[in-house]
Amino acid sequence: MTTTPSFLEDPSDTRDAIMRATYFALCKHGYADLTIQRIADEFPKSKSLLYHHYDGKDDLLLDFLEFMLEQQKERIPAKRSSGSPRDHLNAIFDRVFVSPIPDDYRDFSRAMVELRAQAAHDEKYRNHFTRSDDFFREVITRVIQSGIDEGTFHEVDPEQVTEFLLMTITGAMTKRVTTNNETLETARDELDAYVRFRLLADEESASQ
Amino acid sequence: MTTTPSFLEDPSDTRDAIMRATYFALCKHGYADLTIQRIADEFPKSKSLLYHHYDGKDDLLLDFLEFMLEQQKERIPAKRSSGSPRDHLNAIFDRVFVSPIPDDYRDFSRAMVELRAQAAHDEKYRNHFTRSDDFFREVITRVIQSGIDEGTFHEVDPEQVTEFLLMTITGAMTKRVTTNNETLETARDELDAYVRFRLLADEESASQ
Repeated sequence: MTTTPSFLEDPSDTRDAIMRATYFALCKHGYADLTIQRIADEFPKSKSLLYHHYDGKDDLLLDFLEFMLEQQKERIPAKRSSGSPRDHLNAIFDRVFVSPIPDDYRDFSRAMVELRAQAAHDEKYRNHFTRSDDFFREVITRVIQSGIDEGTFHEVDPEQVTEFLLMTITGAMTKRVTTNNETLETARDELDAYVRFRLLADEESASQ
Repeated sequence: MTTTPSFLEDPSDTRDAIMRATYFALCKHGYADLTIQRIADEFPKSKSLLYHHYDGKDDLLLDFLEFMLEQQKERIPAKRSSGSPRDHLNAIFDRVFVSPIPDDYRDFSRAMVELRAQAAHDEKYRNHFTRSDDFFREVITRVIQSGIDEGTFHEVDPEQVTEFLLMTITGAMTKRVTTNNETLETARDELDAYVRFRLLADEESASQ
């Protein structure tokens, strides 16, 4: 779950190395205090390379967001080879609700909340987060559909349940780094109750 | 629901007038591009008053957030004099999920998402949003408890359901202004289904 992406440990090319530097600078300084210079400080090669490739901080960050989305797409296979749909959903929730929150994941989550907030006034960021949500929508819808197909989930509307879950996940990621209550255990318990009531067929839904 | 707060129409004192100017400047420019000068542009009195009262933009914005929270506290009575707990919950959801989103509410929601994101790296903002969440937690918990007391809601754990609803509401407010899909109707349908399944006693929960 907290597996370090390979580009952080062993960047294979210049773009990987730029992405790695951006990741660490973003975790260290957050969005508002981030500058190309601060990214360069984490970058072992020439700073001019950064200026050569990007028209400023936001151009670089938008490329970084795309890169992170590609990483997610590689790490979250479209079809899960093993594990039940319920396990698959739980694995997604476990990533979001990990408790206690590891320091590096907290720093990254804070930065992501700041980047997402840029979308409120910047169309390019908004387009990115729309595409990013589309990907997770596709993943979750497919998991729910497969649970219905194999008869372990109730015959719900997969799109409707997915929209609700996406909203809940966005809320979880936002809330945990914008209040002093980092622990989301109570909300997670209720999310599990929702899944039992709404999705799981048979005996479990009756036992609450 | 979209009732204009009185301070926007008829500010009764200097603080109200400053809050009014801040509200309009924030809706117009967003957080990142906001300056004291831009707030002053909306302020009919002397700009020096703003500098006299506040140590810069964030100091003023934190006071603005407190002021808006006070407004909410006045507008959302602790005990609802009429209407069922279910109506009360629906009224809260209607405010968050209003569709289509009115222009002024969109502008304000965008600014609020940006202000909340400041909490990722600024303790003062984080303390504010913690207090703000505490208020809404209190309101929603009380509504659920009253539904349980009068026998129209199942005997759920009110705190647990509330944490989940707060997370969902934060997600809704964030998602609608950070993606190109402003309509939250599908997610709202599922929120209503959750309330039916989880809270409403008797026949409705069986009919899905």
